[in-house]
Amino acid sequence: MKSYIDMTAAELAAEKNKLEAEFAQIKAKNLKLDMSRGKPSADQLDISMGMMDVLSSSSDLKCDGVDCRNYGVLCGITDAKALLADMIEVPVDNVIIYGNSSLNIMYDTVSRSYTHGVLGSTPWCKLDKVKFLCPVPGYDRHFAITEFFGIEMINIPMLETGPDMDMVEELVSSDPAIKGIWCVPKYSNPQGITYSDETVLRFANLKPAAEDFRIYWDNAYGVHHLYEDDQDYLIEILDACTKAGNPDMVYKFCSTSKISFPGSGVAAIAASTANIEEIKKQLTIQTIGHDKLNQLRHVRFYGDMDGVVKYMKKHADILRPKFEIVCDTLENKLGSLEIGKWIKPKGGYFVSFDSLPGCAKAIVAKCKEAGITLTNAGATYPYGKDPKDSNIRIAPSFPTTDELKMAMQVFTLCVKLVSAEKLLVEKA
Amino acid sequence: MKSYIDMTAAELAAEKNKLEAEFAQIKAKNLKLDMSRGKPSADQLDISMGMMDVLSSSSDLKCDGVDCRNYGVLCGITDAKALLADMIEVPVDNVIIYGNSSLNIMYDTVSRSYTHGVLGSTPWCKLDKVKFLCPVPGYDRHFAITEFFGIEMINIPMLETGPDMDMVEELVSSDPAIKGIWCVPKYSNPQGITYSDETVLRFANLKPAAEDFRIYWDNAYGVHHLYEDDQDYLIEILDACTKAGNPDMVYKFCSTSKISFPGSGVAAIAASTANIEEIKKQLTIQTIGHDKLNQLRHVRFYGDMDGVVKYMKKHADILRPKFEIVCDTLENKLGSLEIGKWIKPKGGYFVSFDSLPGCAKAIVAKCKEAGITLTNAGATYPYGKDPKDSNIRIAPSFPTTDELKMAMQVFTLCVKLVSAEKLLVEKA
Repeated sequence: MKSYIDMTAAELAAEKNKLEAEFAQIKAKNLKLDMSRGKPSADQLDISMGMMDVLSSSSDLKCDGVDCRNYGVLCGITDAKALLADMIEVPVDNVIIYGNSSLNIMYDTVSRSYTHGVLGSTPWCKLDKVKFLCPVPGYDRHFAITEFFGIEMINIPMLETGPDMDMVEELVSSDPAIKGIWCVPKYSNPQGITYSDETVLRFANLKPAAEDFRIYWDNAYGVHHLYEDDQDYLIEILDACTKAGNPDMVYKFCSTSKISFPGSGVAAIAASTANIEEIKKQLTIQTIGHDKLNQLRHVRFYGDMDGVVKYMKKHADILRPKFEIVCDTLENKLGSLEIGKWIKPKGGYFVSFDSLPGCAKAIVAKCKEAGITLTNAGATYPYGKDPKDSNIRIAPSFPTTDELKMAMQVFTLCVKLVSAEKLLVEKA
Repeated sequence: MKSYIDMTAAELAAEKNKLEAEFAQIKAKNLKLDMSRGKPSADQLDISMGMMDVLSSSSDLKCDGVDCRNYGVLCGITDAKALLADMIEVPVDNVIIYGNSSLNIMYDTVSRSYTHGVLGSTPWCKLDKVKFLCPVPGYDRHFAITEFFGIEMINIPMLETGPDMDMVEELVSSDPAIKGIWCVPKYSNPQGITYSDETVLRFANLKPAAEDFRIYWDNAYGVHHLYEDDQDYLIEILDACTKAGNPDMVYKFCSTSKISFPGSGVAAIAASTANIEEIKKQLTIQTIGHDKLNQLRHVRFYGDMDGVVKYMKKHADILRPKFEIVCDTLENKLGSLEIGKWIKPKGGYFVSFDSLPGCAKAIVAKCKEAGITLTNAGATYPYGKDPKDSNIRIAPSFPTTDELKMAMQVFTLCVKLVSAEKLLVEKA
């Protein structure tokens, strides 16, 4: 089909009329579908049901001599630390296991820096200005944490290799108010980009103006591949930072939320020995210990990383067809129209779509009118403000394949309709 | 036996020689017993083993239409809120369920007030001085939180009716830097005192100089009675505050840590609607939700408060003989000697012992020498400083009854020995 950009006003007007008729038909179906959050489907949850049976009243509930039912063990039971250390690719002594939420660990990390500083530096609450770098598009819940603490957020464009490192290097080395950067380095949220080797090594070799600058490395999708034979590889950042003489510059976060059960997983932080010791000082005030029975449940269910990989393949078998529906529909319906761009991801939970500038909000609203809920336009940017109003995050995991096919028909129709309207106004 | 106070120096010296011989014999036994923390025994944990079986892969894992395995539900599943609301005696809408640790909720509450203030007041981190009142003796982990945030702690003597309310009223109404008071209102840690009706009502009717003053009401032992027919009763504070026109003045905390499994219980906060709304604003930034499967496990195991009460009787059957060993040994060995005071508690987890002034550290050290670990002397006071050096917390729950009998023999011997030494020096 002819590109919308190349159409005459008359052709566009005819196209718009046709699309409006299609839209009216679809709206009459009273659909109600949700593609807003990266929420696993019930099928995916069923994969882990064996976890409900690994512990019973006849189980040995000890790990390394510790009764997992009782108080104690601040940083996680031995076997859970070993499993998560393996998953996050760091030595076991550099890991602390928390509760069910890595987001909560990130919140606590920012909050602790705000109230108590970082390895002896001035607490951020005593500073006039604290800034974070935010690769965009990015994860709305990251940006919400820094916004909650009044931290100024600076947009960093995402390239195909990761954040624009020229910009990151220049800002980090020149502005001591910049205390952190939010990163989803593998199968990034929402674009599915994995940081290139060069990007990771440039991160490890940063020369921050602020001694308390930290990379917030949220490896949320570290083992969340879609394809067995075509996977992205990410250099391990803690080791890279250590080799670059910057061992304390990074906090790594991970969880099993999208491996076992999203509400009942196990989350962890990994960092240098000095950072871990500082975190423990807070943790010993904050709690007597996290849920060790749930840690034990994970250890008994997966055994080791081979077990995790085995279950991740089952997730991939469910997710892969969904991602292919999204990408194939985008390609089939919009491929030649020059009204949108996207990257086909090899893992993670999202497909990121960039519309013509100024169209994202209208597309999301139009989808809503037809019963399809998408993540709010702008959500992938700090303060919910997408300067170009063009990025939309598509989350294919929760709907069934049939629902998703329908939802993507509606989505691409809305993209076409809003784009045609926009271009018509411009040509007028 | 004759009171040590009434003995002559010669009598005391003879007594001391006899005690030293006894101590040498006991020390030779190389004992290794721990009465330091309020940790349930393995017998108590066994009571709840049925909880390991209530959920399996064939269970219905929904509650009120919510799939408890997935993301979502910020404040707790419906049935868990109902159970905990009943336990903490407040309306269900005034409860938020957290993870496994009420200490963590208290930490988060202080931390949020420090970073964001309380219902619009100035964040504590922006103030020159913040103070907390600390009824003493009290709970070391409470004091550790306020110390961690640099909050000045003021000792308030505990009376048999609860904190000295004359002092509380005067300080709270006159000093706007006083932002809170730590309370364990029922079977207090460590004395086992339950606040009288008058005390609770005086709390509810406080007229704080600071609009952001809050009562931190840690009802850790609300259902932890030792006797079925002789239980303390505590007026419900949230309702009392509301009736007094101070609905926002209190945060209540509770958990099932000493009901189900200490490491894997469910914790909650209860407060006024305004406070709950403010807490939710933080919570929605902090997490996507706490572990709903563990909430469901508790709901299915207990059913309702009758179920909780039934299990608490089983705990009491195990704990009661231990508390009686402690109190009987104190009475038998020290009853007439005038070298110590204690209260026989009707619930909770501790017996508080007050030695002659200046003896507590020496007694704890002497016990340690004989292989008995007690909570550090001073731990029941802010900054670990007991001005009289006289309070010792005894935690009878973890040892077996046989171990406890031996430990109390050693303890009372050490009390006598240290007291005799002290009195001899004074008489010299």
